[in-house]
Amino acid sequence: MPSITVLCGGVGAARFLAGLMQVVDHSSITAIVNTGDDTELHGLSISPDLDTITYTLANAIDPERGWGLAGETWHSLEALERYEAVRPEGSAAATRWFGLGDRDLATHMYRTQRLREGASLSQATAEITRAWGLGLKLLPMTDDRVRTEVTTASHGRLAFQEYFVRHRHALTVTQVDFVGADTARVPKAVTDALDTADIVVIAPSNPLVSIGPLLALQRLAGALARARSRTVAISPIVGGQAIKGPAATMLADAGIEPSAAGIAAVYAPWASTLVVDTVDGGLTTAIESYGIRCVVTDTVMGSPARAAALAASVCAAIR
Amino acid sequence: MPSITVLCGGVGAARFLAGLMQVVDHSSITAIVNTGDDTELHGLSISPDLDTITYTLANAIDPERGWGLAGETWHSLEALERYEAVRPEGSAAATRWFGLGDRDLATHMYRTQRLREGASLSQATAEITRAWGLGLKLLPMTDDRVRTEVTTASHGRLAFQEYFVRHRHALTVTQVDFVGADTARVPKAVTDALDTADIVVIAPSNPLVSIGPLLALQRLAGALARARSRTVAISPIVGGQAIKGPAATMLADAGIEPSAAGIAAVYAPWASTLVVDTVDGGLTTAIESYGIRCVVTDTVMGSPARAAALAASVCAAIR
Repeated sequence: MPSITVLCGGVGAARFLAGLMQVVDHSSITAIVNTGDDTELHGLSISPDLDTITYTLANAIDPERGWGLAGETWHSLEALERYEAVRPEGSAAATRWFGLGDRDLATHMYRTQRLREGASLSQATAEITRAWGLGLKLLPMTDDRVRTEVTTASHGRLAFQEYFVRHRHALTVTQVDFVGADTARVPKAVTDALDTADIVVIAPSNPLVSIGPLLALQRLAGALARARSRTVAISPIVGGQAIKGPAATMLADAGIEPSAAGIAAVYAPWASTLVVDTVDGGLTTAIESYGIRCVVTDTVMGSPARAAALAASVCAAIR
Repeated sequence: MPSITVLCGGVGAARFLAGLMQVVDHSSITAIVNTGDDTELHGLSISPDLDTITYTLANAIDPERGWGLAGETWHSLEALERYEAVRPEGSAAATRWFGLGDRDLATHMYRTQRLREGASLSQATAEITRAWGLGLKLLPMTDDRVRTEVTTASHGRLAFQEYFVRHRHALTVTQVDFVGADTARVPKAVTDALDTADIVVIAPSNPLVSIGPLLALQRLAGALARARSRTVAISPIVGGQAIKGPAATMLADAGIEPSAAGIAAVYAPWASTLVVDTVDGGLTTAIESYGIRCVVTDTVMGSPARAAALAASVCAAIR
């Protein structure tokens, strides 16, 4: 059984991992997860990508919303509304735009307590994934604080969740920064997972704000560069559109063609193979002109079976 | 209208304040509240006495339990159970014994966030009481960390909530410590409230673990000593029993007679008048032998009307 390390953002990565878990042994999978989206709200430490992956793989995610837990209630958040009237200027209020369900809060409370007790985010994450009965390894890209900030044309510089959730990513992004990435340490487990994996996968996540933070970590980027011949990326752009989220617009705003060929340009330094959707089969020559091999298959994970088929194709692309 | 400052623990103080608010202008009342019971659970900063008073005065307390909010749900706490199985040794788990309802959590989340943002507990408390529409001033005894710890015959030294909630105060206490009290600063608003009040009231709270932490703060004790002629204490012991909680047992374990006379011995240095219940009218001479005047009235606050009548008697005792 080959060992597989997957670089992950949130929803797209979670769906891919769910497919992968159908076709390989769970203990052979390591997911290295973006923490640039992490935030502190209401005194709690929140790791959206880690939780989206955990809840998805545990079959506990709300399928309609795509985030948070199914069957959730919102009593705590509703009760917090009372305090919005007295909150002084300068205090960060996210009550009205960042959904935190009562059961979801338990995850953030556990994580927050463990971090306060001196545990690393890696330790807390290992405990949380074990609590959900998951057999794969979920590794935060770093245990240090890295925060993605986007500069927008209309609203200036924003914390990632302000841009993504509060403004529903409907703003033109002129710059993306990963604050803290230059000094954040990369855990040895992360570089080991890249150095020893038979297959490295860059999940179909937003290359700029989901995979970007991982690439901004020097030692992680170094390990990924060493693994290039074993690395396959999955294009998050299908027919010029992102399956979910603002990737296409953000790429265009960054001067990158929002197409599978643009993705090839972005990932050619990191991956030796790019998996693109059948609708983009015509781009094969354009893609391979960047020095990256192109594999064409069905990449839209509309069902567990299609996610499993994609995972199998991705593994086969390297083996 | 006289200004009234009340030294407070939790439930008994809350009921007295509710009575007081029926007979005097709310803006003339300042409550100085014990924070030795405060704790951190699940990453959240919890102030049980402040919250019991706030919820009681806002008519939001659960009347059956005597703590927390009426009509509460428990989804977050139930969801936290999942993590108990993976919690490593040394991590503090209170899930199973410290009740935190979903709506109550909102208060702790707001407080925790404000403290993280650099607000003092006094500021956060002022915001929270304003959010509940309360017109009195609620002042934590200190903005610094003081933690009541009890040494027990059977279980060694315990944090207060471990003793009080987890072990349901059914342990013999051999010593009480207020960790941090020697260096904790007393806000000027607290000493001012004692220096300027027409009437100072020591609420019918546990003298050892509810009022004790306040007396352990040197500047607060100094201001209270200066106010002795204006200070009236209400005995929390009625007919040799505490209305609620372990006060009688704790007094006995500390070598103090668990009676209104024992209370007189404890409070004589601080108060010029002690209000005791009619059932203890026979102790008047014994009480006054400690150099404290004795006022006999109905002190059992079985209804709002009786609480109001007690408050009126207490005010009259000084005026």
